[in-house]
Amino acid sequence: MLTSKLVTDVVERALTEDCPWGDATVSASIPADLDFQANLVAREPGFFAGGAVLVETFHQVDPRIDITNLVPDGTAFSRGSVLASVAGPAAGILTGERVALNFVQRLSGIATLTSLFASQIAATGAHARIADTRKTTPGLRALEKHAVTAGGGINHRFGLSDAIMLKDNHLAALGATANSALTDAIQRVKAQVGHTTSIIVEVDQLAQIEPVVAAGVTGILLDNFSVQELRSGVEIVNSRCTTEASGGIDLDGVADIATTGVDIISVGAITHGANALDLGLDAS
Amino acid sequence: MLTSKLVTDVVERALTEDCPWGDATVSASIPADLDFQANLVAREPGFFAGGAVLVETFHQVDPRIDITNLVPDGTAFSRGSVLASVAGPAAGILTGERVALNFVQRLSGIATLTSLFASQIAATGAHARIADTRKTTPGLRALEKHAVTAGGGINHRFGLSDAIMLKDNHLAALGATANSALTDAIQRVKAQVGHTTSIIVEVDQLAQIEPVVAAGVTGILLDNFSVQELRSGVEIVNSRCTTEASGGIDLDGVADIATTGVDIISVGAITHGANALDLGLDAS
Amino acid sequence: MLTSKLVTDVVERALTEDCPWGDATVSASIPADLDFQANLVAREPGFFAGGAVLVETFHQVDPRIDITNLVPDGTAFSRGSVLASVAGPAAGILTGERVALNFVQRLSGIATLTSLFASQIAATGAHARIADTRKTTPGLRALEKHAVTAGGGINHRFGLSDAIMLKDNHLAALGATANSALTDAIQRVKAQVGHTTSIIVEVDQLAQIEPVVAAGVTGILLDNFSVQELRSGVEIVNSRCTTEASGGIDLDGVADIATTGVDIISVGAITHGANALDLGLDAS
Amino acid sequence: MLTSKLVTDVVERALTEDCPWGDATVSASIPADLDFQANLVAREPGFFAGGAVLVETFHQVDPRIDITNLVPDGTAFSRGSVLASVAGPAAGILTGERVALNFVQRLSGIATLTSLFASQIAATGAHARIADTRKTTPGLRALEKHAVTAGGGINHRFGLSDAIMLKDNHLAALGATANSALTDAIQRVKAQVGHTTSIIVEVDQLAQIEPVVAAGVTGILLDNFSVQELRSGVEIVNSRCTTEASGGIDLDGVADIATTGVDIISVGAITHGANALDLGLDAS
Amino acid sequence: MLTSKLVTDVVERALTEDCPWGDATVSASIPADLDFQANLVAREPGFFAGGAVLVETFHQVDPRIDITNLVPDGTAFSRGSVLASVAGPAAGILTGERVALNFVQRLSGIATLTSLFASQIAATGAHARIADTRKTTPGLRALEKHAVTAGGGINHRFGLSDAIMLKDNHLAALGATANSALTDAIQRVKAQVGHTTSIIVEVDQLAQIEPVVAAGVTGILLDNFSVQELRSGVEIVNSRCTTEASGGIDLDGVADIATTGVDIISVGAITHGANALDLGLDAS
Amino acid sequence: MLTSKLVTDVVERALTEDCPWGDATVSASIPADLDFQANLVAREPGFFAGGAVLVETFHQVDPRIDITNLVPDGTAFSRGSVLASVAGPAAGILTGERVALNFVQRLSGIATLTSLFASQIAATGAHARIADTRKTTPGLRALEKHAVTAGGGINHRFGLSDAIMLKDNHLAALGATANSALTDAIQRVKAQVGHTTSIIVEVDQLAQIEPVVAAGVTGILLDNFSVQELRSGVEIVNSRCTTEASGGIDLDGVADIATTGVDIISVGAITHGANALDLGLDAS
Repeated sequence: MLTSKLVTDVVERALTEDCPWGDATVSASIPADLDFQANLVAREPGFFAGGAVLVETFHQVDPRIDITNLVPDGTAFSRGSVLASVAGPAAGILTGERVALNFVQRLSGIATLTSLFASQIAATGAHARIADTRKTTPGLRALEKHAVTAGGGINHRFGLSDAIMLKDNHLAALGATANSALTDAIQRVKAQVGHTTSIIVEVDQLAQIEPVVAAGVTGILLDNFSVQELRSGVEIVNSRCTTEASGGIDLDGVADIATTGVDIISVGAITHGANALDLGLDAS
Repeated sequence: MLTSKLVTDVVERALTEDCPWGDATVSASIPADLDFQANLVAREPGFFAGGAVLVETFHQVDPRIDITNLVPDGTAFSRGSVLASVAGPAAGILTGERVALNFVQRLSGIATLTSLFASQIAATGAHARIADTRKTTPGLRALEKHAVTAGGGINHRFGLSDAIMLKDNHLAALGATANSALTDAIQRVKAQVGHTTSIIVEVDQLAQIEPVVAAGVTGILLDNFSVQELRSGVEIVNSRCTTEASGGIDLDGVADIATTGVDIISVGAITHGANALDLGLDAS
Repeated sequence: MLTSKLVTDVVERALTEDCPWGDATVSASIPADLDFQANLVAREPGFFAGGAVLVETFHQVDPRIDITNLVPDGTAFSRGSVLASVAGPAAGILTGERVALNFVQRLSGIATLTSLFASQIAATGAHARIADTRKTTPGLRALEKHAVTAGGGINHRFGLSDAIMLKDNHLAALGATANSALTDAIQRVKAQVGHTTSIIVEVDQLAQIEPVVAAGVTGILLDNFSVQELRSGVEIVNSRCTTEASGGIDLDGVADIATTGVDIISVGAITHGANALDLGLDAS
Repeated sequence: MLTSKLVTDVVERALTEDCPWGDATVSASIPADLDFQANLVAREPGFFAGGAVLVETFHQVDPRIDITNLVPDGTAFSRGSVLASVAGPAAGILTGERVALNFVQRLSGIATLTSLFASQIAATGAHARIADTRKTTPGLRALEKHAVTAGGGINHRFGLSDAIMLKDNHLAALGATANSALTDAIQRVKAQVGHTTSIIVEVDQLAQIEPVVAAGVTGILLDNFSVQELRSGVEIVNSRCTTEASGGIDLDGVADIATTGVDIISVGAITHGANALDLGLDAS
Repeated sequence: MLTSKLVTDVVERALTEDCPWGDATVSASIPADLDFQANLVAREPGFFAGGAVLVETFHQVDPRIDITNLVPDGTAFSRGSVLASVAGPAAGILTGERVALNFVQRLSGIATLTSLFASQIAATGAHARIADTRKTTPGLRALEKHAVTAGGGINHRFGLSDAIMLKDNHLAALGATANSALTDAIQRVKAQVGHTTSIIVEVDQLAQIEPVVAAGVTGILLDNFSVQELRSGVEIVNSRCTTEASGGIDLDGVADIATTGVDIISVGAITHGANALDLGLDAS
Repeated sequence: MLTSKLVTDVVERALTEDCPWGDATVSASIPADLDFQANLVAREPGFFAGGAVLVETFHQVDPRIDITNLVPDGTAFSRGSVLASVAGPAAGILTGERVALNFVQRLSGIATLTSLFASQIAATGAHARIADTRKTTPGLRALEKHAVTAGGGINHRFGLSDAIMLKDNHLAALGATANSALTDAIQRVKAQVGHTTSIIVEVDQLAQIEPVVAAGVTGILLDNFSVQELRSGVEIVNSRCTTEASGGIDLDGVADIATTGVDIISVGAITHGANALDLGLDAS
């Protein structure tokens, strides 16, 4: 779901930041007619993401640089795998190398961490899906959400404009501090928005579930519920809307949560806790 | 060293990304005249960075939001510390909360990790300083380099334009594959550039050191040298230029490296390996 | 749901377009210290929209211009009503007048036309709501969708990124040319997207309704259905999802359509067919 | 007179607005290798405008989309005419369709309305030309003024920077409330500006004409004059400058006005009162 | 005629260029609470231009910097004159100093050179006015044209969009290689454009004048005519349009040209040949 | 060291400035299918700079325009030399001509003036190099610094971010008003910055040199020193850092200064005092 404009802009900013008035080293050392060939090589196993950004980076530096053998985003790879080949003018390849790596290392790190969560869930046979949050790097949200899908996750709302998520402060402002007021408060919100705007409500007690679901919502987020509470919550909801577990979920605990029957497990760490994966550009 | 334009732009992009056509939740739930007060609270100990970005984020959402009690960047804090107070229209505070946290969590994460490296070095009594690299998040380099200084590190070159770093590929292109050709190759580079352009040369063997230093350089980067080799390298250089250790250095090994006498220890992980620190905005 | 950045940018573009290197007339005729007062007066009845843009326009030209007595967006007014008062340096008011009027005349035209549709529906006692489409002026979508809500309508999806609408070409590409394949095709789409992404399916025959609704969708769009067909469609859907009538609906026909029991009536004409309302700035 | 930058920018904004982080529907339904062919078909007669914007829209979405058989801007067409053929990847064509139509429907609507005014004038045999005003859609002025020429009209000044138009407020500020002061006031304005800056003066009484023309102006705008007054005005001016009729002129009245001998008839409605023409993209 | 947006943008670019990621010197040496006062002092006599840019530069660096005693653009000054006082945080003043000076030195240089030409003309008692050309610094045209007016000159067309200037290549393309074809060719051009678009025609022989003037033009440019030819040209034109002398005119020759009776003398050198005037910021 | 983005942006701004909504003259006179050929011809001798900008200008106007025979930047040429050939659609060539010339005339003017300084130095046999300053045209710094290298000069720091230059005000703020405090003050600055940040210190008396050099600096700038003082200064420095002469140096005096043994002679006039070189585009 990446548009070419989005990729173009983010690469343009990265290159301008790294190389605002030229690559001083390359200018002073690399002849214009020198060619170079290199492979993008995995130094650890993982899932790939960021191919479009890699290509765009080198093409912005020099449109004559060819990228071949590029594996599709979402490809699983082992240590030593070649993920792409880069060939063309040495000057441009050396100038673009670090920016290109900064992108694909981060995005592949996210895809890989997402895939680890997804694997834990899959191993239980549960139907839950791993989802991202808004805890993304400022300026890179679309890329990072794309990387989440490359790792087998799904995307939560993109941001504040495209879906409603009512949390405690919003509910309090609506006068819904008592559970008995929840249904009405949510329905007042529904009356103000279009039919394509999803409404998720975050709750932190079992007693809130019924009045929320009764209002007719897209989903209910069960925040920091214990495994036992989640199981009860899923029963109460009884498929009337989507159930989502969230809050401090890590790789160790995700399987247990999946077995509660929740539909969605959202984990901020798959974006804000992912480290750069070790990928390198090796002369070939 | 952050300019206000730099901070303004990065915040503008982050808010536009998160909230391109308004906060649907806030619009449907929060009265315009509702006020709110909250504290930025540390959920784990660390070093703070990103105060200017926090302020700018809330001010762009609503200039009437007041930020008080903001600790200066570089402040060490313990779990539970209040790092800032935020007060003003609830609508704006709730809209800006996530973006503001995304910034300060990431930047404080970098400051904190940097400070851990710096502490390890300091404990040895060595004079080495911890430095960043170009392995930063695309679009956030200036902020992340600022966070490094907040954590007690120093900044390496900002990017490709402001200093020269000759690595193996550049040296090969200059015809300096044999060590005997190094001095001349580097001097040809020096002849092309201004006197304010620093020149760092990366080497991976002890034998390269003398010809590099003989050329008159700003610094020499000893790449993936063992502790013993670093010690020898420092001796060979003998203060004729800056010595820098780099390559796969982690928190466990940094103290040993510091004791070799190198001037600079550069570590990509302090930016690309830092996780978001756990900070939250709690109603007060 | 307008962000200040969105308003700032659209006004900046409009002023740059109209006045790229200064107002030649004002420069040559209006003394810097001359003040002026004027009222925004309605020359025909309607509903107001665009107050924030009006204010921003004059403030960008000269921050010393005061706007007072501004009626809120969504206010109904009669011919001769004063909608705002403008006072301050004459130079700035005369420079900004036309751009400000271009905005509020267009947006109030949309609000007014929307209100006419909404009144027709309201008169029937039906629960249907009038909704906009993507047939908006390029560059002004957020403003125009805001004007629709000011006129009593609701907003459909903002654009291509925030909700799914499957039309004939998409369904054909999914292999769902036969109705029997619809349910499965839609479910394959659902499996790829997050739980906050609404899914609307457009159909043009009654026989498509059951397999679409069976797939579990947010809404079904009944395209160019007759009033009788709409009534049947609403019965088949039986509240399992939102029903939406669309296609060539005008002010004369909207009441009959509302009585069929559909939830949403979407009308492109409320944006692309609205004319500028006659508002003027009269010296006071 | 459209520059490629101008077209590129306006299309970029429109696509970003409609599709900020990808087309969710297309991503989930259309295979990358599916091709599609369609025709831009007129559902009502009119004059075409916007070809360059149509092409740019599809090319920005996917440069592999081919536009052929495109009729030139200014072409008159009947209901059912094919105005362009579009062929290429289905994904891109479906993503770009609505934005492309939003442009060409609006611009062709303006060209068509302009041509109706021009025809009324032409039928009288008068030499008057129909001209636009500054009552254009914010952000689309150059496109809309181009559409006016496609419909047989001419362009008035582009905006505030490229010509002077003195109206009552400017004249009052110049101290020219009495007609006897008009000549001198206008000459003081002339003395301040370059020889390429045209000066139009708007008057609303016959008695103002002689002192205005005596000052040496490019044109005189006769605002809200009756047909009889216009005829007198044209006689008084006696070809010493351009005569322009303006103010509330509609399709019914334009012929009578043309017969008065005025040179220019300027009509805000040809831009702000034009509706989108009904054009569609039909699979072929 | 400078808009605030125009000034804001040009200053923003200049500061970003000079100080993309902070002032390294100031950061390392100037305490945040240190104040500073300085005067903008003329080191040579001249005419001032650029006050608005000076103010904007310091305000963008730090809005707390006060500019007082600023002389208006167009002020004549002698060596040693104080043109403005600057007071506030030392950090910001030192950071903004060079950019501010780069602007006002260049613009005052243009104003001063223009005034020298204007004085030469004034001394003859002729009515000719000195005008600029399109030979301006890319990116600074509006500022430089403003500086020309500050020096007593007038502005020619702003650029290619706001007036027509037909030169030999255009006339040849119109088939007007023979003088007999000139009148008709120009009238065909007139028929295509609006009444506010001025038309200047450049000629290089006396014989072209009559057919050009007969077509009805705004002005005629007599390119590289001798003084005697100019005198004849002015007689032929006989006030039917503006006469303009251009081509290689310098300070020595301008007086003679003025005495020929031409209305306008356009000189590229007043912008592209002006040097920075020597102004400095001296601590006070 | 010009990046393609930098060239693209500066040309885009220049064309938008000159031709915001089309070339009125070309639109009304030049047929779309008319071709044209011209040569860029030197009307005076000099050194060429700006080839990349010339090409980009014509390509942005019309990508079908071919530029051939382009001499490389840095080429010395005599009067009458052909520096490039331009061929393609006449409309585009005529539209782009002035902007292209404005660039190459200015940049070649800088290259040429730089080469004159460099020649004066070279004639003495001294090793000094001519360097630029920050006295460049706002918005064109990278281009102008590139032109300096084309003329045989070297670049000083790019701006405030990439190197430190301590002048009197900075030293005073550091408490180094007495020479005895200089060494310590500079070392405190050094402790705050990275090893790639060069430090230049400006002094105006011989007595300051020893304490500055003792601090360990990249270079020392000897401001407004007499030739004799420069000679003494060079001796005191004794190659411990770079020596730079600056302040009011002109073509007449540069040779004497070079003979003092300084390494760098920096001259603001090579950018802010260079006039446009006379180059023209002649039909061929």
